[in-house]
Amino acid sequence: MTDTAPWITYRPELTVLDCTIRDGGLMNDSRFTDDQVKRVYDACIEAGLDFMEIGYKNSLEQFPKAQYGPWRHTYEEDIRRVVGDHSPEQTGLKLAAMADAGGKSDWQKQIIPKNDSVLDYIRVATYAHQISEAADMVRHAHEMGYMTCLNIMAISIVQDAEIDQVLDIAKDLPLDAVVVVDSFGNLYREQIDTLVRKYAKAVEGKGIEVGIHAHNNQQLAFANTIEAIILGSNRVDATLLGLGRGAGNCPMELLIGFLRNPKFELKPILSVIEDTILPLKEQFDWGPSIPYQLTGQMNRHPRGAMAWRASETPDDYTGFYDQVMADV
Amino acid sequence: MTDTAPWITYRPELTVLDCTIRDGGLMNDSRFTDDQVKRVYDACIEAGLDFMEIGYKNSLEQFPKAQYGPWRHTYEEDIRRVVGDHSPEQTGLKLAAMADAGGKSDWQKQIIPKNDSVLDYIRVATYAHQISEAADMVRHAHEMGYMTCLNIMAISIVQDAEIDQVLDIAKDLPLDAVVVVDSFGNLYREQIDTLVRKYAKAVEGKGIEVGIHAHNNQQLAFANTIEAIILGSNRVDATLLGLGRGAGNCPMELLIGFLRNPKFELKPILSVIEDTILPLKEQFDWGPSIPYQLTGQMNRHPRGAMAWRASETPDDYTGFYDQVMADV
Repeated sequence: MTDTAPWITYRPELTVLDCTIRDGGLMNDSRFTDDQVKRVYDACIEAGLDFMEIGYKNSLEQFPKAQYGPWRHTYEEDIRRVVGDHSPEQTGLKLAAMADAGGKSDWQKQIIPKNDSVLDYIRVATYAHQISEAADMVRHAHEMGYMTCLNIMAISIVQDAEIDQVLDIAKDLPLDAVVVVDSFGNLYREQIDTLVRKYAKAVEGKGIEVGIHAHNNQQLAFANTIEAIILGSNRVDATLLGLGRGAGNCPMELLIGFLRNPKFELKPILSVIEDTILPLKEQFDWGPSIPYQLTGQMNRHPRGAMAWRASETPDDYTGFYDQVMADV
Repeated sequence: MTDTAPWITYRPELTVLDCTIRDGGLMNDSRFTDDQVKRVYDACIEAGLDFMEIGYKNSLEQFPKAQYGPWRHTYEEDIRRVVGDHSPEQTGLKLAAMADAGGKSDWQKQIIPKNDSVLDYIRVATYAHQISEAADMVRHAHEMGYMTCLNIMAISIVQDAEIDQVLDIAKDLPLDAVVVVDSFGNLYREQIDTLVRKYAKAVEGKGIEVGIHAHNNQQLAFANTIEAIILGSNRVDATLLGLGRGAGNCPMELLIGFLRNPKFELKPILSVIEDTILPLKEQFDWGPSIPYQLTGQMNRHPRGAMAWRASETPDDYTGFYDQVMADV
């Protein structure tokens, strides 16, 4: 059907990160049970995934224990309780945690020396205007001995010149990867292309990979993820059954079904979805629906759609449409 | 963010066809009520759509009235009962019906002169190997006075040389459009590119447009549809809330939210989804789910997944995975 068919081979350097527990924590205040986290952890190993992001490394003051589960702070004792004597060498899986810039993380205190931690990878999430603190966080995590990554969030509302500025700072940081994050699920394929190419050019020759983190407001999370992969992104985020706040994320099952590296196994992914993730649908509303489409296409934070979906009229689509359009 | 942003303008020659009732008929044996069809018809007009495909023009012998609703045969009296004195000039909406090749349609008898019909557009659906009959059907419909279209189904399992052969016949037919049909929801963006370019080249200079008809097994129906549009497809199929057999179709609401021609209105689409389409979810299972992903990614007809979804264990994903893999 075509002259070349690159999708039937693979790039060994492409790695997959499961962020079900971390990003899904925005849905349930990070209140996953130990059993749920353990089940996801085991499935990540069985499926041959490279990274599991097990939670946020955020501040106890801003996210008090009375309101948030353990995976908002991801202390060593909590992780150890689930993963025991985790060995990245034996399992092939490295553990990651995400620290938010903007004063949300007490990173100076909580990002301890790697030698004392079961974590391997610290991902720093930042809005463009918080890049100075984020840069300090990356340097600190690197000095503590971790692999590091910079997730520049809500990129669809950042001006071009500002993206350039952020990337100009990022390129000189000790990073494993810089990630295109479409927080609002707004971007179309051509925009993904432009961004991935821009990021790749900015970090060229620096040994920094480009990553992709997509949301599913327009049912484009998987499409945009494989588009980024086609363009050379080697750091890919996804979640089981697309679990995540609002419209959710790129579904891991679609991604693993697409990737051709024989080290990845789809069946363990299907298994954990069946016994652990699908039952959560009874408690939480996530995945594509019309309110999330509307905030995505209008390039807005999903919070309005989340409130609508949690209201007594979640399927009053015209009502939400009127509300969104009244704000234009 | 990018040098050009073609997605904020529009091509006036791009037309949208709603095939909710026609393609959705594969889900419920074309047993939509007159009220449902009327509601969809009204919404198509209010939304500014160009075509509504109101049913199949298939054979009474093969699809007896005892088993199939009126929209499997789409007789004039049935359409008239719903649309009354329909005027394409006043409403901006043309009515279409689909006739299947392969002996499924008694087209010589049932495709009557356009002057006696409320239909404007006959779409002929064919598998590649049925192209000779399909060509006769197209010529007949054209002679009767209709606009005509050729939907070449299940294109993901047709060999390249056969596609060329079919297009070589199609290019000399009196067609408005020839449509890339991804019946199995198998194709990735790069494959859509190859096909759309191939079709466009084959019919170049013939005044025949290229269309796109996508299924949503991999949550790629919308992505693949906008990809075809980017490459110049001017005939686009979608259904309300993606209604359709199995994983369903490209969702109309996403498409209309994407298109920038001010003649299209999203709100009437949301309204009919709310009051007429969403309630059908209680009766029918459609839309992306893991069994449909698996048949899509394995490039198979969705019938196995449909049977699984209709069984007592619709969410036994690993069980269906084992079944699919046992067939490889």
